[in-house]
Amino acid sequence: MPQRIGKYTTRLDSSPSVLGFAAIASKKEGEGPLAPYFDVICDDTAFGEQTWEKAESRMQKDAVNKALEKAGLSCAGIDYIFAGDLLNQCISSTYGLRDLGIPFFGLFGACSTMAESLCLSAMLVEGGLANTAAAVTSSHFCSAERQFRFPLEYGGQRTPTSQWTVTGAGAAIIGRKSVPPYLRALCIGTIEDMGVKDMNNMGAAMAPAAAATISRFFEDTCTGPDNYDLILTGDLGQVGSALLCELLCGKGYTLGEKHNDCGLMIYDRKKQDVHAGGSGCGCSASVLCSYVLPSIREGKLQDVLFIATGALMSPTSVQQGESIPGIAHLVHLSALPNPQQKGARH
Amino acid sequence: MPQRIGKYTTRLDSSPSVLGFAAIASKKEGEGPLAPYFDVICDDTAFGEQTWEKAESRMQKDAVNKALEKAGLSCAGIDYIFAGDLLNQCISSTYGLRDLGIPFFGLFGACSTMAESLCLSAMLVEGGLANTAAAVTSSHFCSAERQFRFPLEYGGQRTPTSQWTVTGAGAAIIGRKSVPPYLRALCIGTIEDMGVKDMNNMGAAMAPAAAATISRFFEDTCTGPDNYDLILTGDLGQVGSALLCELLCGKGYTLGEKHNDCGLMIYDRKKQDVHAGGSGCGCSASVLCSYVLPSIREGKLQDVLFIATGALMSPTSVQQGESIPGIAHLVHLSALPNPQQKGARH
Repeated sequence: MPQRIGKYTTRLDSSPSVLGFAAIASKKEGEGPLAPYFDVICDDTAFGEQTWEKAESRMQKDAVNKALEKAGLSCAGIDYIFAGDLLNQCISSTYGLRDLGIPFFGLFGACSTMAESLCLSAMLVEGGLANTAAAVTSSHFCSAERQFRFPLEYGGQRTPTSQWTVTGAGAAIIGRKSVPPYLRALCIGTIEDMGVKDMNNMGAAMAPAAAATISRFFEDTCTGPDNYDLILTGDLGQVGSALLCELLCGKGYTLGEKHNDCGLMIYDRKKQDVHAGGSGCGCSASVLCSYVLPSIREGKLQDVLFIATGALMSPTSVQQGESIPGIAHLVHLSALPNPQQKGARH
Repeated sequence: MPQRIGKYTTRLDSSPSVLGFAAIASKKEGEGPLAPYFDVICDDTAFGEQTWEKAESRMQKDAVNKALEKAGLSCAGIDYIFAGDLLNQCISSTYGLRDLGIPFFGLFGACSTMAESLCLSAMLVEGGLANTAAAVTSSHFCSAERQFRFPLEYGGQRTPTSQWTVTGAGAAIIGRKSVPPYLRALCIGTIEDMGVKDMNNMGAAMAPAAAATISRFFEDTCTGPDNYDLILTGDLGQVGSALLCELLCGKGYTLGEKHNDCGLMIYDRKKQDVHAGGSGCGCSASVLCSYVLPSIREGKLQDVLFIATGALMSPTSVQQGESIPGIAHLVHLSALPNPQQKGARH
């Protein structure tokens, strides 16, 4: 039985496993430091499709199929799939996954989607509502640019705080099998809004949400940064990461070298012109499913907190003078399952 | 413990209850046949806000607060909230609910959102992952028109098969308490696409998804239309409803007078110029939370299948020549809980 620990955290007593995972990336990501870890690197940013939106759909489908293959499962063996993306009406997910025939839950969590979909998958498995569930998300630099900012042909100048949307996708299959990585606990975020209005500084808009979720998790579980090998935020980039560390320092937690950010890991910022780092749903998804999950499976990392962050705005809300709310969901991934507690309830 | 029945259906053995519910509507809906049942009818379609998008956010917030009030609960008593809407990046939900401080799951299910959010709320309660969860969605005629079709000022001609987006919202609070309506079973839909490409005929695009989910539920539960007082689809409107009945007839199920559609109930099509009926996330949400749930609570309706349907397209996907995929999720609502089955497993 799941156990609520404290106010916000749920301990997954059955410790659902990540049975399979896969990450798809494109040219620029393939030139970055994580190149050896992606399952597929497609130098054609159109992935052989006629539009960037269709390319993004293709990435989601390929990521799910690859993850299934690696888990030794087929679509028929998956009870539910949770998917979402950044595009209006989440068309990357709906068109990408329409042929799979898996009962489908559409999500919108912006760049927090990988954590949101993992959490819901794990919750259904933990609660006995599913034997297996899949979590998938994606982003594409070109489809995001033209939807959120300018036509690519315009060649708009980018501010130093801006981030580069990752062209990539990640998928994970969750189920009950005694194989690492295990999902041991999760903490669902609330919407946080500190009044940041700069659409070119999403990291700053999302950092307060990450700080809120991480500090709640530490409080609920009576743990701190020392208990984990890696505290990995989604895509705060350089500006947001610095702000997160500052905010958590104010709450008495020093992240120090335990912290890293998917947006800082995916590109080599000295060589690749990505300003404050990577972003997009596909950023945390592809970093998690390429480098992090295998490292846990192989025992190189023992305990990881994965906190994907999302900026819950739209160009319309920004044009109407609104600030940018953020959200962050946390998953505790581990090489070991939770210790068995017979009949114990918090 | 939840029980999987057949391939697609989950029986909720603990029969979570709808603890509270509320429906918000605007002028046109207040001139329709369900006027006596709405909690709030605001003749100002801007709901006192400066933009239609903000009005839609306001409706969601008001619906949740009203439902909480009627359930005798506060935000602090809700473990999770599931919300989504039609606007790009779901800003009605994220801005509407950002001040509530409830752990937030963003959904995108288009007009299936009320059923999707109800199902996930019920699943978390059934699985012991939540004591209480809230489900909410909305739509607004003006925000939807300008996003999906034309500026209102243009006065575009509407085709006979087109539907009128409802300005309304509905919210329901799910928990464990012995009070009707009970959620007894659910069936999550797969994405269905029969190749309909007409953006002005969403009913036809969604009918195959409704037919698939309903027939799977009947098969899994060994029941048929005779076992229910009302089989209520989300917003197929007149064209989609006729098509649904035809499709199900082909599978051996005659819905007959057991079937109704939220899009046909909310307006008086003889007096109100809404063409094929109502649509939008707020259509099924406001009909369910105004007329249907109270009727079950009062015992006027015993067993209801609620099947909200969504068209998973965007203007971009249509412009790129894509067909319109649909989805439909089903909830079995009842005046009575499931019979207790000690230790029984299917």
